[in-house]
Amino acid sequence: MSTIFPKGQHCGNENFIGNAYINYLTKNDDVYDAKFYDVYFEAGARNNWHIHNGNGQILLCTQGMGFYQEWGQPARRLVKGDVVEIMPGVKHWHGAASDSDFTHIGINTQISKGSYTWLEPVSDEEYKIATKN
Amino acid sequence: MSTIFPKGQHCGNENFIGNAYINYLTKNDDVYDAKFYDVYFEAGARNNWHIHNGNGQILLCTQGMGFYQEWGQPARRLVKGDVVEIMPGVKHWHGAASDSDFTHIGINTQISKGSYTWLEPVSDEEYKIATKN
Repeated sequence: MSTIFPKGQHCGNENFIGNAYINYLTKNDDVYDAKFYDVYFEAGARNNWHIHNGNGQILLCTQGMGFYQEWGQPARRLVKGDVVEIMPGVKHWHGAASDSDFTHIGINTQISKGSYTWLEPVSDEEYKIATKN
Repeated sequence: MSTIFPKGQHCGNENFIGNAYINYLTKNDDVYDAKFYDVYFEAGARNNWHIHNGNGQILLCTQGMGFYQEWGQPARRLVKGDVVEIMPGVKHWHGAASDSDFTHIGINTQISKGSYTWLEPVSDEEYKIATKN
């Protein structure tokens, strides 16, 4: 998939399942008190359940098809042009559909107010149920 | 030009020359203390010189060709994947090339620290010189 931003570094598999890549876009995050990055998820890749503590996260979906799910809620299917607003303290995950790569820009605001807490992986069964519609 | 985000409202011509459209992407800007928007500049369109007071602005270029210029500096040509980091207090303008539409996502961080000051338009002659290379 031809991307807007170059593919960044592999995210590793401590907090991700499958292959995801992150490209940090800005240098002066301390001036903005925010972080800006682009994430490329290969089909089936997703991050673990996690929580942003104190600060919000915004996802701007740019290519392919993905999913976003909040704990206890049905997953939301994401395509180009979709915007996800994640409130501080909300347990969630995001990633690609099983049959499509997916990219989103991510912005974490007010990073001085907190970082994140990584939780359990989204198991294959959990992912299959969440993304079946 | 097919866009990632729908074209928003016309920016008017008080602070812009030509046709530009802004689409505000998020609802909970008070939670993030930040604003997220997409701007579509038709070829030749640009905003007036302006300054962000106290807060930074980030441009994430998504389509077409545009320019960014800081006061007293040569203009920088922008294409898909370019990132512009604008420090608080820096007088600048941005807009499309004369022969290409241009879109960028814009993010204003720490909006509680200040808004912007709109200044004089980028005249046709100034624009022509700035964008000749």
